[in-house]
Parts: sequence; structure tokens; C-alpha cells
Amino acid sequence: MFLRIDRLQVEMPLPKDPDPAAAAAVNELMGGRFGEMTTLNTYMYQSFNFRMRDKLRPFYALIANIATEELGHIELVGAAVNGLLYGADGKGSVAAGDAPFEDMFKQAGAGANYHINGPHGILAANSLGQPWRGDYVFNSGNLVLDLLHNFFLECGARTVKLRVYEMTKNPAARMMLGYLFTRGGVHAHAYALALEKLTGVEVRKMLPIPRILDAEIPECDKFIKEGSHRKLYRFSPDDYKEIAAIWNGPGLDASEILEVVDGPPQGGPQYQMDGVPEAFIPEYHPEEIVDIANKLYSAAGGSQP
Amino acid sequence: MFLRIDRLQVEMPLPKDPDPAAAAAVNELMGGRFGEMTTLNTYMYQSFNFRMRDKLRPFYALIANIATEELGHIELVGAAVNGLLYGADGKGSVAAGDAPFEDMFKQAGAGANYHINGPHGILAANSLGQPWRGDYVFNSGNLVLDLLHNFFLECGARTVKLRVYEMTKNPAARMMLGYLFTRGGVHAHAYALALEKLTGVEVRKMLPIPRILDAEIPECDKFIKEGSHRKLYRFSPDDYKEIAAIWNGPGLDASEILEVVDGPPQGGPQYQMDGVPEAFIPEYHPEEIVDIANKLYSAAGGSQP
Amino acid sequence: MFLRIDRLQVEMPLPKDPDPAAAAAVNELMGGRFGEMTTLNTYMYQSFNFRMRDKLRPFYALIANIATEELGHIELVGAAVNGLLYGADGKGSVAAGDAPFEDMFKQAGAGANYHINGPHGILAANSLGQPWRGDYVFNSGNLVLDLLHNFFLECGARTVKLRVYEMTKNPAARMMLGYLFTRGGVHAHAYALALEKLTGVEVRKMLPIPRILDAEIPECDKFIKEGSHRKLYRFSPDDYKEIAAIWNGPGLDASEILEVVDGPPQGGPQYQMDGVPEAFIPEYHPEEIVDIANKLYSAAGGSQP
Amino acid sequence: MFLRIDRLQVEMPLPKDPDPAAAAAVNELMGGRFGEMTTLNTYMYQSFNFRMRDKLRPFYALIANIATEELGHIELVGAAVNGLLYGADGKGSVAAGDAPFEDMFKQAGAGANYHINGPHGILAANSLGQPWRGDYVFNSGNLVLDLLHNFFLECGARTVKLRVYEMTKNPAARMMLGYLFTRGGVHAHAYALALEKLTGVEVRKMLPIPRILDAEIPECDKFIKEGSHRKLYRFSPDDYKEIAAIWNGPGLDASEILEVVDGPPQGGPQYQMDGVPEAFIPEYHPEEIVDIANKLYSAAGGSQP
Amino acid sequence: MFLRIDRLQVEMPLPKDPDPAAAAAVNELMGGRFGEMTTLNTYMYQSFNFRMRDKLRPFYALIANIATEELGHIELVGAAVNGLLYGADGKGSVAAGDAPFEDMFKQAGAGANYHINGPHGILAANSLGQPWRGDYVFNSGNLVLDLLHNFFLECGARTVKLRVYEMTKNPAARMMLGYLFTRGGVHAHAYALALEKLTGVEVRKMLPIPRILDAEIPECDKFIKEGSHRKLYRFSPDDYKEIAAIWNGPGLDASEILEVVDGPPQGGPQYQMDGVPEAFIPEYHPEEIVDIANKLYSAAGGSQP
Amino acid sequence: MFLRIDRLQVEMPLPKDPDPAAAAAVNELMGGRFGEMTTLNTYMYQSFNFRMRDKLRPFYALIANIATEELGHIELVGAAVNGLLYGADGKGSVAAGDAPFEDMFKQAGAGANYHINGPHGILAANSLGQPWRGDYVFNSGNLVLDLLHNFFLECGARTVKLRVYEMTKNPAARMMLGYLFTRGGVHAHAYALALEKLTGVEVRKMLPIPRILDAEIPECDKFIKEGSHRKLYRFSPDDYKEIAAIWNGPGLDASEILEVVDGPPQGGPQYQMDGVPEAFIPEYHPEEIVDIANKLYSAAGGSQP
Repeated sequence: MFLRIDRLQVEMPLPKDPDPAAAAAVNELMGGRFGEMTTLNTYMYQSFNFRMRDKLRPFYALIANIATEELGHIELVGAAVNGLLYGADGKGSVAAGDAPFEDMFKQAGAGANYHINGPHGILAANSLGQPWRGDYVFNSGNLVLDLLHNFFLECGARTVKLRVYEMTKNPAARMMLGYLFTRGGVHAHAYALALEKLTGVEVRKMLPIPRILDAEIPECDKFIKEGSHRKLYRFSPDDYKEIAAIWNGPGLDASEILEVVDGPPQGGPQYQMDGVPEAFIPEYHPEEIVDIANKLYSAAGGSQP
Repeated sequence: MFLRIDRLQVEMPLPKDPDPAAAAAVNELMGGRFGEMTTLNTYMYQSFNFRMRDKLRPFYALIANIATEELGHIELVGAAVNGLLYGADGKGSVAAGDAPFEDMFKQAGAGANYHINGPHGILAANSLGQPWRGDYVFNSGNLVLDLLHNFFLECGARTVKLRVYEMTKNPAARMMLGYLFTRGGVHAHAYALALEKLTGVEVRKMLPIPRILDAEIPECDKFIKEGSHRKLYRFSPDDYKEIAAIWNGPGLDASEILEVVDGPPQGGPQYQMDGVPEAFIPEYHPEEIVDIANKLYSAAGGSQP
Repeated sequence: MFLRIDRLQVEMPLPKDPDPAAAAAVNELMGGRFGEMTTLNTYMYQSFNFRMRDKLRPFYALIANIATEELGHIELVGAAVNGLLYGADGKGSVAAGDAPFEDMFKQAGAGANYHINGPHGILAANSLGQPWRGDYVFNSGNLVLDLLHNFFLECGARTVKLRVYEMTKNPAARMMLGYLFTRGGVHAHAYALALEKLTGVEVRKMLPIPRILDAEIPECDKFIKEGSHRKLYRFSPDDYKEIAAIWNGPGLDASEILEVVDGPPQGGPQYQMDGVPEAFIPEYHPEEIVDIANKLYSAAGGSQP
Repeated sequence: MFLRIDRLQVEMPLPKDPDPAAAAAVNELMGGRFGEMTTLNTYMYQSFNFRMRDKLRPFYALIANIATEELGHIELVGAAVNGLLYGADGKGSVAAGDAPFEDMFKQAGAGANYHINGPHGILAANSLGQPWRGDYVFNSGNLVLDLLHNFFLECGARTVKLRVYEMTKNPAARMMLGYLFTRGGVHAHAYALALEKLTGVEVRKMLPIPRILDAEIPECDKFIKEGSHRKLYRFSPDDYKEIAAIWNGPGLDASEILEVVDGPPQGGPQYQMDGVPEAFIPEYHPEEIVDIANKLYSAAGGSQP
Repeated sequence: MFLRIDRLQVEMPLPKDPDPAAAAAVNELMGGRFGEMTTLNTYMYQSFNFRMRDKLRPFYALIANIATEELGHIELVGAAVNGLLYGADGKGSVAAGDAPFEDMFKQAGAGANYHINGPHGILAANSLGQPWRGDYVFNSGNLVLDLLHNFFLECGARTVKLRVYEMTKNPAARMMLGYLFTRGGVHAHAYALALEKLTGVEVRKMLPIPRILDAEIPECDKFIKEGSHRKLYRFSPDDYKEIAAIWNGPGLDASEILEVVDGPPQGGPQYQMDGVPEAFIPEYHPEEIVDIANKLYSAAGGSQP
Repeated sequence: MFLRIDRLQVEMPLPKDPDPAAAAAVNELMGGRFGEMTTLNTYMYQSFNFRMRDKLRPFYALIANIATEELGHIELVGAAVNGLLYGADGKGSVAAGDAPFEDMFKQAGAGANYHINGPHGILAANSLGQPWRGDYVFNSGNLVLDLLHNFFLECGARTVKLRVYEMTKNPAARMMLGYLFTRGGVHAHAYALALEKLTGVEVRKMLPIPRILDAEIPECDKFIKEGSHRKLYRFSPDDYKEIAAIWNGPGLDASEILEVVDGPPQGGPQYQMDGVPEAFIPEYHPEEIVDIANKLYSAAGGSQP
């Protein structure tokens, strides 16, 4: 089972200006074939279905623990898309006969869907608005094949992220991407190590795919300096400690040492975002329901922060 | 972000005999339109996209916390399907020209897929083998509409679960169903209360839908006696305490009092299941990789449990 | 706009015994690529989008009127599937720990879905349980191409119906099929005449495809004797009379004369079917809601028939 | 079975100027998850599958009759999209090497599909060009659950319509939306009443969702003045009179009385639209087929209007 | 089985300027319902499944041989899309913090997918980025029905190609279209002849659909002069000679004679296109892998051309 | 462009008895995510989109040539499924009121679809009857990533084939599987070599995945003895000779030498199969169309073999 902490895995600034086109591109990283929904659910299902887990705990723990980190990644991508849509609000009032969303969403491909069917926020879809599909999950049960797939998947996901990076200069989006390049790099590396333990083949020597180093990407600097690329966080109160049996020894840069961090990162606060009353989010007259919430709070003996 | 505990939310016995037909039916509860993937992701995305969450924290906390409980539900359904497939292993050897999976998987509809493409375990699909789709997620951003949907979704999910219950007598599957009837009932009730706070309409008086009481279902007895039906667990080290502003007061049976439990349930251990070497799960000669795992363990200073 | 008459287009006996396998096969005729949903919606959308309809009224009227007849066909197929499932009810009680639907739905492919997600009745899906899709509609706007498609579609639909006919001996299903062979034959013939008017090519001489005459199919006898194969009904109080400009002259058998019937057929009564309380259809204790309905009736000054 | 009247349920002006972007948005109201295809088919299938309909006629009649009104709604949305595309014709001739549709359809997302695969008219798809799917139909067979769903569905459909309204100022599109807001409001209200009869819960007090009154929307004025919001039309020559057992008494505004109108509305004429010969609609040289139609008419003793 | 010749079926100039919007439109001709993937696979599967092929060789050979020509058509459409994207490369460097693909792909609907998930080249999808589906294949096994379908399919494919032609003036795209109009015309004609042999109906007299002659399309001139419209190429070293039993006699213009050409056309060279290193195609520093290729060549005793 | 030879790549016996369940399983190898349609089209599109192909010819030639071999593989799988369905014909006559396909297709999952919508032959679908999808194609344009994917894909495809092997003892199906294990092994090996040339990582040392040697599978014996596992056929009259720059040197068993065979294999004859007149394949009275074919032959100066 799972616990939740009401923080993001990394501190991200709220974008200053809305950028719906970037939001649509970043949405690919959520619900595309190589999006975080695919990495998350693939590792999650592999952990659910892991046979002989008692006898193969280092491998089980590795997959189960990375799956848990990926839960935080879908949250991050969600926050990024919300942030990129923030402030893209229509002007004008329905009651006055205005069409507040006539201009903004006209050109952005799948973007109009954020307004029509969505919450002006992340959707479980790719950049074209096509829904994520459960058959993107790969789980054969054969450990070597599953790990080989995971290694490929991380490389494919990195390629897609690199290309989305190339489509927006938004600093908030890029900060998230810089973080995900680093963390995705850790995951690819970890699966490569697991494969190497099982087959003897030095798969990690293929990295990075594509052949651009994180160190060449400006937004990775901060995270490389923090050593994020050589740290595997343990996302559990007490379990999955066996990941240390795989994640140890020298890093890709042999002068560095791989490290298991015994707990989640510090992270950053959740975004606080106003509603879009013109789009009925959370309501056409939100002050009424805020009032209700305040009363509930008082009645329960608490007070609204 | 999230943490993981390597236990199930409830203790479930491992099925004594394989029951692939029941497994296929139970799989609907994972990846069907009204399966746990839909409840989980709907609430998860609603929590990601929640606007004005600082001012509407009781509602935000309710949805975010139930989403976290649902993570444990997909794990439970996964375990149940694995358990129902356990022992449905083929007899014979490929090298001897046998067809070890000729008979078992012949008739079970989508069931052959467990062998061909799957890990002899849970798939992110419905009972027909159709993949779960991201557009099953409903998230309009309008708080009343989203809560109304969630209330309907829980009732729809209960109906589907009741019908799957009617398709198998397997005690392990039914114990899980008994637990999920109770917990789903709590969720429906909680959303009804939230709706009532916002609109004044006593939606909870519609419960249960369909009109069969949990108390009429034998497998719910144990959980009713434990009071599970009036408890909302808080699945977080420190957050989401505001759920108490909604989940309080008398229960559906007015003689009972709703209670927030300050932490996750005790739960039960994960299943320990052997592999299916004939199906290459985790490998054709698993003893070789078990040996590797043991060495890793020793090298890392640990020892296999 | 449309009006509805609470009768079926043809009188069908209620099947004596349930036949879930036949139901699954017949469901193809509803939601398969060549099912009635496709013919209905193709002609419906062609009528919605018909340009220059004032100047091309015979063609417009033909398509619009056949679309309306197809509405009755989806109703017929729906009734047939319901009838084939009627009585396939589970025995036993949930409260007693029974699994009333364990046996019946085990083997029937998509059939379990009738119970799990469905109303023990028709679904908008094919025989495999795959949903009907809006892109089965063909409507290019080019009149000759659309008519050529419609002619092909009717022949394809006839092929599928013939093959479903070969999969069940159920007399009720076969009576419906006999009726639909005849009516589908009229539609293919009508589109062939329209094509011939426009291009001079005697397309109707290809009929029937496949090369088995309706007269060779026992269940068509009754309808041939009634002359159904040479009658085009006008399904409108006052409109679409221009169909007579296309549907006239000798039939495929030159000794017969094509006839426009100025109104709908007499048809037969709707099935009256009990509920399936074990499956919560319409409710677990239906007598309670019947009682409510009776009171509503009285209050409104009517009386239950 | 069904009859068809060659009129729209409401009189709509033909748009003066083409507006392909608005057309794409309005198409969501046809084939989106919350479009008219979903309301229509959900109620239609619920009526096909209704068990114990003799004993529960008020509920059966309500669903069956609203389904029939929805047939007119898909026709209305179809007309609106056609109208919005009307005049968006390319200039120039293929024979002269022109590319008449190069500019117009370049930017409009799914819009190019109207030209490539469509009839320059409505498609059975959503605003992204994704086909409508038969599994959008919800029909559990449990009467309370189905009615709860229908109530939710109408609220969801209203939300989507409100958001599309905010994306276009086209007067023709907005007149249709004003009409549909009113009629959708009647349907939501009617399902709420039915639920209230069965459960005692005053669901109608949640209306409207979202919390903007029709009276606040300028284009609803006309229809409110006509009392459309308190009228339920009976779309049948002689049947479904039992709807009066549910639709009676005071309206949402208690000073008004709910009324069953014994027949369809007067409505308005169908659009008459020229073809798009450059797109081969209905043909590259339409005058040739108009000539054929005229001759057919004469031969049949009629004359082209 | 099959052999491959490293040439295109027709010589096409490489486009001088990139035209991503035209690329997206042309992609419909690959993976749309009426794209070359559909014609190719339909005829391919019909040839795989052809029963009694020994006794019906002229029909078998016709379908099998046209299927092989279609393999060259998917290659042609692929080359055209690649050519239209050629040079649409981003400017700037990731390492310098640039967003080289920010502008170019912003507006082009499905076009961004060429960058995010694709190779800046053809995708197996339609113009909206929706994947081609195997159920676009039609193969009933009934020879007359399959041929009728093929005739319809070719007419539908021609309509779609005509409409794409109207969306771009790019000379390279149009040269390919001119070629495909001619070759598709041959296929429609050939299937019409096959149908006529079997049924006696002069289906070919319906051609062309839509009613615009190839001779009216400027880009067809060259191919008409070469007689391409009356030639059926035999794409096999030694087989399928029986096509001559169907493709013979006078052409649509009775003054011309149909001709079987005993081998493939001369065709033209493959495009030679540089990579897009900014998009990691074929790599971020391609000179490194070119160097590797050169060494392989030398080692194998060859030399790079 | 392509040429076709009317032979299979390997000689396969026609199955003696029909085995519809095995046919359904084998169909996965055609249209499943890891079926031959995926390998074929992935390599085909990679060859279409290959940038810098002049400078990287060994890699281009390898992919383009394996794609061509895969064309023969879809033909082989097609033949196998046809063979497994051969003789599964219904008994009895429609005209006599029989239901010739009532029994045979009742239980076989997707199998009924072979009759209802199919040609009693291969479908472009997986074992559940779900259509193959164009987004199974992977083609990023990055050479290392595409080759890594291809290596993974071949291993995944091998796993699926092994599991289908375990579901049938049919000798014809198993002979085909034995052949495909060997040929798929060559492809995995070839992609591993290409990856090794580019990255230096000895990927081939992971083979085989799963860890069962072809030599352990009885049906591979024949092909291993013929040396098929160390031969790469060149499927082209004159092109793709550069494959020798990659496929050379010692084999996986270092005592063997890899060999490029300069042309296609000898292969075996196509199956000759009777029709299924009861299913209208190729027609209800096939003797009539055989007669037509004979006359065409005579008229064309040939004679039926």
C-alpha cells in the first residue's frame, strides 16, 4: 500500500505567463506511449506480478521502488501542465454575451480539449489528445526481458523528453525537464546495472541514448551539482532496502560513487493556483463554496490556512 | 509525492486452486471502465488539477487521500488475479515436445492472453482483454460535477463488483470483494457527504445502489464488525488531516459515528508465489538467477530472508 | 425530427429458451462494422449532410427514409438479443453465498459482459464486445461514391447476417434474420436503382451477393409471400414522398412491380420481459419500485395496464 | 419503430459567414463523450433493454420519449456544423492547377478532416476528430443507477456545451446552444424527478450544474419566454403518455407548472445549402445529376419544388 | 515471398522547401482509412487467404500482383512525406539553451508528432495522427464481394487523394499524386473488369468517381502520355502471368489497348537526405557513426559510395 | 519497390485436421503487438525514413533487407492460420435450415470472427481479435535507439512465439514456429551486431532471451542442421549487398561462421485449398466462377494448370 506527502519531488517555480502550446507538448510526457503513465504503470504492474520475489528481492525492490518514484513524476508533469495553462483564462462574461475562450484555444491542436472536456489542467492523454492505453504496459514476467524493456523504455522516454525540451523555452517546464533527465538517467542506469548483474553484458556503456550528455543540458547543472544523478532515493518508511544490492559501486563517471538515499527528497511545495470561474472551475461563483469550506473547517475545530 | 509499504491493505489467503475464469472476471475490476484504474486515476488527476486547493482544503484533502487508498486497491486486485492464476501452470517440457499450456487456457476468453502476452498475472485491461483507457478519467474541474461523478462512479463500480462476485465462489476473491464493498461504500458515502455540504441535497440517502446492503453479503461481515464501513484512513505521514471536516458525525446507520483513522490499516503480507519456469517466469532456469541474487545480497552485506 | 411508435417493425416470438451464444453472435449485427448501427448512422449522417437536397430530392428522400427504417432495425436486433438472453438468469441468492452467474456466462466469449457491464441485453458492440465506432460511418458527400458505398455496405451486411444465421437455429433469431434479409435486399436494390439512374450501369444485376437467393432461405418465405421484398415503406407522416421517383417499375423478378407503401408496416408488439433481480435488474427487490410506479400512475389519474 | 418529419426541432438561421473553428468545437457536441450521440444512444439502448416495462411504464416512457427527442438533437447539431462550414469553399479549379483548399483548412486542427474524409459537414467524432464509441453508452439495467447516470450525463453535457458556447460568438451556433441548454435542462430535471420518485432524495435541488442559470445566458431568453424549460414534448403519434406521471407539478421555479405537450414542437425548416463542386460535393459537375433528378421527377409524375 | 529493389516506382524531385502542413495532409494517404496501407494490406490478405487459387488463377494473380505494386506505393508516399519535411530542421543548439523546434511545429496539428515521437518522416497514421488499424482490411473470402469492395476502395482512395491534391501546390507532392491517380485508375479499372467477367455488369462505365477525368489534372499529363493508364506491370520474376487473362482488350477510351508490361517500371532513385542532428537523427554527432560505417565497409572489403 | 515470388519461404505441410483454437493463438503472431506485422512495418518504416543512408549503408541495408524477409513471414503466418482452419467447414445447407457453423466456432474466443467477418483465414488482428495498430511501429530516427528497440522487439516476439508454441502440438504450426525461431534468432543476432559496432557493447551475449536455446526445441533441429541460424539471405536482385559489412565473422557458437546467402531461400509451394461454399468462399456455387475463370484462360490463350 501507499502513503502520500503533499509536496512535489522538486521545487518548481510557477510559470509567469501561460503557454498553452508548451502545455500540449508537455502533456505527451504524461500520457504518450513514452510518458510517465507508461513508466509508472509498467513498473507498478511488474512489481504486482513479480514471482519469486522473496528469492529475488534486489530486483523486486528495485522495480517496486522506482515505480513509487514514478508516482511523483506523474504529479510533477501534472503540475507543469497546470502551471503552463495558468493565467490562460478567458476574459469576459457569458452573461454579457462574451466568448471568453474564443481566441486563446483556437490554434493549439489538442489544446482546446483542456477547456472543453478538461479542468484547464493535465489530461491522461498524449500531445494529440489521444488517451493513454493500458497496453502500453509491458510485463512479460521474464525478468531479463522485462529489464531489457525497461532499459529501452527509459531511453525512449529520454528521447521524447529531449524533443519536447526543444519545443519550449519556458523556464518552469525546463526546470522540470532538467530534473526528469537526471532522474530518468538514474533509472536507465539502474536497469542497466540489473541487466548486467544477470547477463554480464555491460549495457550501461550504451548510455546516454541519444548521445548527448546531461552535462550538456543547462537545466541539468543544478541537479548534477546536487549529485542527483548518482542517488537512488528509497521511497518507503521501512521497505525496499535491498535496492542497495544493485545500486552501489562507481557511477558512469567512475570517479563518483552510487548512493542510496534513505528516504524521499525534500522536494518543494505544491502550486497554489486560483480558479477559472469563467470556465466554472471550481465554480462560476467560487466565493460561495469557499464560504462553505470555511464553515466546515470551523465546525471541525480547525481553521483555514 | 508518495511512499510505499510492502504490504497489502488487507490480509488475503492465497487461493488453494487456480481459477483462470474467475481471474478473467476479476480483471474487469482492474482495467474495466468501472475498475480500480478508473477510480484511482480519476481521483489522482482531480487532486493534481484541483484549483483553489488552499481555500477548499477539506474537499481537496478528501479526493487526494481517497486517491491514495485506491493505489492500494489496484495492488489488491492485482494480488487477487495473481492468486487466482497461481498453480495454473502447464505440465511438461518444451524440450520434450510437450504443449504445457494447451488445455488450461483454451476456453477462458481473454485468459489466454495471461500466458501469451502477460506474466500469468494482472493486466491493465478489462475482462475481455481490452486495455484501460485514459479517457475513462473524468475531471471537469467543476467541483460539484466532479463530486457528482465520483458518487456515480462508486455506485457503478459497486454494481460491477457485485456482478463479478456472483461469478465466482473462490474464497480469496470473495474476501477481497468483501473488503472492497466496504471500502467502496466508504468512498461513496464520503463523496455523498461532500456533495451534501455543497448543495444541501441528502445524496447519501440513495445508498446503497443497487439496493442490497453490505450486511446482506456474507463476506462483508468481518469488515462490518471491525467498523471498516465507518472509518476513513488517512494515508499520509502528516497531510490531508482536513478530511475530518467532511468525514464526521453519524453514519448511514445513525447509531454509529464516522471516524478518521490517523494512518493506514495494518494490512497483510504480500503473496509469496513461485515462478512458472515453463512460461519463462521469471526464467526458464530460475535457479540460476536466484543464485545471482544471493551473491548480490552477500556482496551488499545483506542476506536473503 | 422524429416520432416513435412503441411497436417493433415485425412481430417476433419471444424465444422459449435462453441462448447466450446466439445472443453474442447476433450482437455483431448491432455494433459490428457491418451492423445496423453502421447502416443507420451512415444513412442518417448522409441525410444530415446532403447538399442541394432541394434539387436532388429523390436521392435525398431515399437515403433519409431508409435511415428511418434502420432505426427500427436497431430496435429489432436489440429485441432479438434481449430475447436470446431471456431466462438466462442465475439461480440462487447472493445473501446465501451463491454465485448465480458462475456457470452460464463462463464460456460465451464476450457474453460475460452482458452480465458484468450490461443490462442482460443488447450492447453497442460487436460479437467480440468491441464498441461500435463512429468512423464506421461513410459519408464523402459525393453522391455517386456514397451510393456505391451504400450498395457495397448492404451486400457486406447481408454476408455477415448470412453467416450469423448459420450459427444459430433459434427460431426467434432466424425469424428476425429472415425479415432483415428481405428488408436489406430492398435497400441494396434501392441503392442499385439510384446508382443506375445516375450512371446508367445496371448494378442491380449483381444481386444477390453472396449468390444465394432469399427464396432459398426458409425464413424468408413468409416475407416474400407478403411481398415485403418489393415494398419500400414511407416512414413519415407527410414527407419523403419523392422516393417513388426511384422505387418504381419492375422488380428483380421482372414479373413483379416495385411498390411504395404509404406508411410504416403494422409490426408487432414489444417484448414484455421480467427482470433479473439477482442481477439487480431493474432492482434487487423490484416489487418496491413497481409499487412506486403504481402510485405515480394513480396520482396522475391513470392506471397501470 | 420510428417516423421522420423533414423539419428541425427549432428554427435556426443559416450562418452568414463560414466559421470552421467553431464547427470543430461544435462537433464535440455530436460525437464527444458528452455529445448528443451519447445521450441519444444511452437512452435508446436503455429503452431497448428496459425490463418490466409494463409494470414500470412511467419510467420506461420517460426514457424512450427523451431518446426520441435526442434524435432531433443530433439532427440539430448536424445542421449547425454544416451551417458553420457553409461557404468555406475553396476558390479555383483543379484543372487550372489551383489548390482551392490550401489555406482554409490549414490551421483548424481536426478541421481538415471535414475536407479530406468528410462531406464538408458533421462527422460522428469529437472536436479532435476521434470517433464516437459505443462504450460511451451506459446501461446497467439497474433503474436507479441508470437514472443517476442520466442525471450526471445531462449535467456533464451541459458543462461541455457551456464551454463550447464560450468559444464562438456565431449567432446561429449560439441560437442552437440556447435551445439545447433549455431542452437539456428539461431532461436533467426530468431524470431528477424520476430519481426523487424512486429514492425520495431531492436531486433536482442540485440544478443547475455548473451553477449558472439559463436565465443568465442571453440566448436562452427566447426559449424561457416560450416556456420551453417547463415543457416535455411527447414525440409519438399515440404512445408514451405515461410520462405525465412523472412530469407534473411545480417547476424548479415553484411558481411555474410542468407541462406535457402532446406532440412535437412546430420546429423550423431544414437548411437548403448549395454544393461544393470543387470538393466533388455532390459532384464535380452537379448540374448533370440535377438534370437526372429532374427527369426522374417528371417520369414519376411529380415536379421538382 | 518478396524481393526488394532499392528504387522508387517513379522518379520524384526532392522538394526544394519544407512544407510540414502538406506533409501532414499527405500522411493521410499512408495511414488513413483510404490510405495505401489499407489498399496494400487488403489486397495482401486477400491474396494470402485466396481459396481455390489454382482454379481461379486470373483473379488470384490480379489481386496478388496489385498488392505487390502497392508495396511500392507505401514507399512512394513515405518518400513524399520525408521530402516535404526535409529542411524543416530546427536552428540552434540544445547545449546553448535554444529551442530549435519551437516555431516550426507549433501550428501543424498532428505535425508536432513528426518531431516528438517520429523520425521527421512518415508515420503509420492518418493526417490527425491516429494510427492505421488492421480492421481497415476487408476480406470476406467471397470473391464478388471482395472485388466490389476493392472497386469501391479505389474510388474512395481517389477521392481522398484528389482532396489532398487540392491542399498543396508542392510540385513534388503533386507529381507523386499525378502518378498515383494514374496507377489507382488502373487498379479500379482492373477490379471493374474482374467484376464484369464474374457478373456481366459493366462496372467500369461508372469510372471515374468522382467525375473528373485524369486528363483534366495537369500532373497526370506526363503519365498519360507514357501510357501508364493502360499498363499493368507484372511485379514478379516469373509468376502472376495470368493477369493477362483479365487485363486485355480495349481501354476505357476504346481506341486504346490494355497492356501487361512484363516486369516492374524503370522507376527512379531513392532520395538521399541529410540527417537532423538537432533532433538526434540519426545521432547528435552523426560524424561518429559515419566513421564507424566507413570502417565496417573497409573491413568488409568494400568502399562507401 | 518490390517483386513477389509465388512461393513460401519454407515448405510447410498442410495440417491434416483443423484446429481453430491453435489458429486463434497463432493469429497473435500476425497482428499482436509482437507479431510479424509489427516487425515488418517497424523495419519497413525505418528503411523508408532512414536519413544519411548513403553514408550509413551497412545499417540501412540491414534494416531494409530484414524488412523484406519479414514480408515473407507475414505470408507464412497467414498460410499457417489458413491451414489450421482448413477443413473446419460446417456441415449442412442453409437451404435445408441447417446451422452449419453452430458448433465449431462456439468456443474459440475470437475464433467466431473467422467466420462472421473473415475469410476463414488470417486476420490483421491479435489472438483476441483486436486489430493491429500503426502505433506499434517504433521509429525514432535515432539509429542506436531504433536498433536497441529492434533487438528488444525480436526478443519480445520470440517470447510470444515460444508461448504460442506451448499452446499447440499441431505439427504444421510447429514446423513454422521452428523456422521462425531460427530466423528471428538471426534477426536478433544481426541487430545485436549492429548495436555492438556502434556502441562497443556485446549485446549478443544476452541471447537467447528467454534463456532456452533453439537447440532445445525439437522443431528447430532441421533448420539448425541446414545452418539457417547463421545465414542472412539477401532478398533483392542486386541491392543491399552491404549487409555483409555487419553479418560476418564467427557466430554465437564461435566455431561457426556467419554467411550472407546471395538470394532468397528455395522455399516451398503455396497451399492449395478448397473453398468453403457453405460460407460463400469463394462463392455459394463456386463451380460457376471456376467455369468463368477457365473461359478467361482459354480466351487469353492459356490453360488452367
